[in-house]
Amino acid sequence: MSIQTDPYTSRGNWPQITERQDPVVYGDSQEQGLLSLEKLRFYNDNGYLFLPDFFSPQETQTMQEHQQRLWNESQSANGPEYVREAQSDMIRSIFAVHHNDPFFAKLLHDPRLMSMARQILGSDSYIHQSRINFKAGLHGKDFYWHSDFETWHAEDGMARMRAFSISIALTENTAFNGPLMVMPGSHRYFIACVGATPKNHYQESLRQQQYGTPDDDSLAFLARQCGIEMPTGSPGSVLVFDCNIMHGSNSNISPYPRSNVFAVYNSVENRLVQPFAAHEPRPSYIATR
Amino acid sequence: MSIQTDPYTSRGNWPQITERQDPVVYGDSQEQGLLSLEKLRFYNDNGYLFLPDFFSPQETQTMQEHQQRLWNESQSANGPEYVREAQSDMIRSIFAVHHNDPFFAKLLHDPRLMSMARQILGSDSYIHQSRINFKAGLHGKDFYWHSDFETWHAEDGMARMRAFSISIALTENTAFNGPLMVMPGSHRYFIACVGATPKNHYQESLRQQQYGTPDDDSLAFLARQCGIEMPTGSPGSVLVFDCNIMHGSNSNISPYPRSNVFAVYNSVENRLVQPFAAHEPRPSYIATR
Repeated sequence: MSIQTDPYTSRGNWPQITERQDPVVYGDSQEQGLLSLEKLRFYNDNGYLFLPDFFSPQETQTMQEHQQRLWNESQSANGPEYVREAQSDMIRSIFAVHHNDPFFAKLLHDPRLMSMARQILGSDSYIHQSRINFKAGLHGKDFYWHSDFETWHAEDGMARMRAFSISIALTENTAFNGPLMVMPGSHRYFIACVGATPKNHYQESLRQQQYGTPDDDSLAFLARQCGIEMPTGSPGSVLVFDCNIMHGSNSNISPYPRSNVFAVYNSVENRLVQPFAAHEPRPSYIATR
Repeated sequence: MSIQTDPYTSRGNWPQITERQDPVVYGDSQEQGLLSLEKLRFYNDNGYLFLPDFFSPQETQTMQEHQQRLWNESQSANGPEYVREAQSDMIRSIFAVHHNDPFFAKLLHDPRLMSMARQILGSDSYIHQSRINFKAGLHGKDFYWHSDFETWHAEDGMARMRAFSISIALTENTAFNGPLMVMPGSHRYFIACVGATPKNHYQESLRQQQYGTPDDDSLAFLARQCGIEMPTGSPGSVLVFDCNIMHGSNSNISPYPRSNVFAVYNSVENRLVQPFAAHEPRPSYIATR
């Protein structure tokens, strides 16, 4: 009889840095797909991949129109999928668009994306979470450093690191408008965060983070080891990033808004179990069960 | 008898955009000095000038040591010159170093700087304000768009646009750590800001701005007209910028702190009078009278 211990314990009394116990690329490298061997190697080493012009200008324009439609609809909407800014009533994110909106459901199951998911995850996959993010111009807030996996493990019960995210740019990303910053290679370290998860934490954490953020020393260590990159580009570009890469974004006082479609692909062999460090699982619009 | 009206009225009920009534470069272009004619032209057109490696590595290292000394001294200091962060007790700025600290007094009167001041201002000059800014890593806050002149005119009584600032980098400035952003050419517009200045406003505004910030529409107009630039570089570089250029900085979640020495040179022919839109002048550690 074997006793399984959780290699990714978090939300305790002390921060801790340990090595990742899981592969990054699970697929057979011989398998043909959208990503070249060179790109897969870059992704494996760095934990992210920036794909400029992934979608055509026509496809991108259609996405922007549908994003605008959802934004208009959201003004009078008030389901839990609609998350507003902590300091104002501006919509910050609309969740579960892969489930609730036929256009984005089709987009996020595009054969090109599913092919990429198979190459990375080495199995069939499903969408764990999706959302459209709106970062307002002038008053866009920062989003502090975090590993998505730390949260998904602690609060959703994602056992292993076998998932990745994509961010499809719907606006120009420049150094000025608070683009995503990543620490290349940080996906090889697991940073255990301090503090027990409060009940119904997600209602606040989607607006402003308090738990599941790394301590200052761990971040300084990672930045020294890995540095920081800021992949920027035009609408239609796609940023692919590992579930455990350390990432965050500065505020946006530029007048240029920043919006994107965000989706998480998880291996069907990594379906959610009970949360590892929370009272109960988060609702399904945040984490598909 | 002539009636003089103030061309730069601000802090009223409505925002307004008007054209600058003053020259940018006052000096005789034939006058020899540190700045080439080409650089002066760039400054005239864009309202700023970035001078990499202005100070030698040795000079820069000495500055960094003195900055560290002041930082250490500041931990137990509590004069009004020591301004702390709004959300914490971290030192954000130390004012009046050109007056209170012999090392920085000498530095800021360096012949190279004074020669530049003569070329730009076309007269003798004096230091209107100086400070050392510390922008912490990880939790550095953003500083919203503003024209310095708008504040100096409204709150200090600086009548005309005949002053400029320098920022000497003491740390590496990258796109990640919340560097200064400028709107090139915005110094040619005066943006009147909305709202009467409260009494003793400076005590709050140095920590967090509320008045003297432009409205959203004016900023969108300026960004369309001028775009945004982010001059970044190594310690020892100097950014020179006109008193009326629109500038600001995003937050800094990177672990890299950002600090600089900041000084304002004002023409002796532009000495302060009564504030144009405030109850009483601000104290002399903020505005030399």
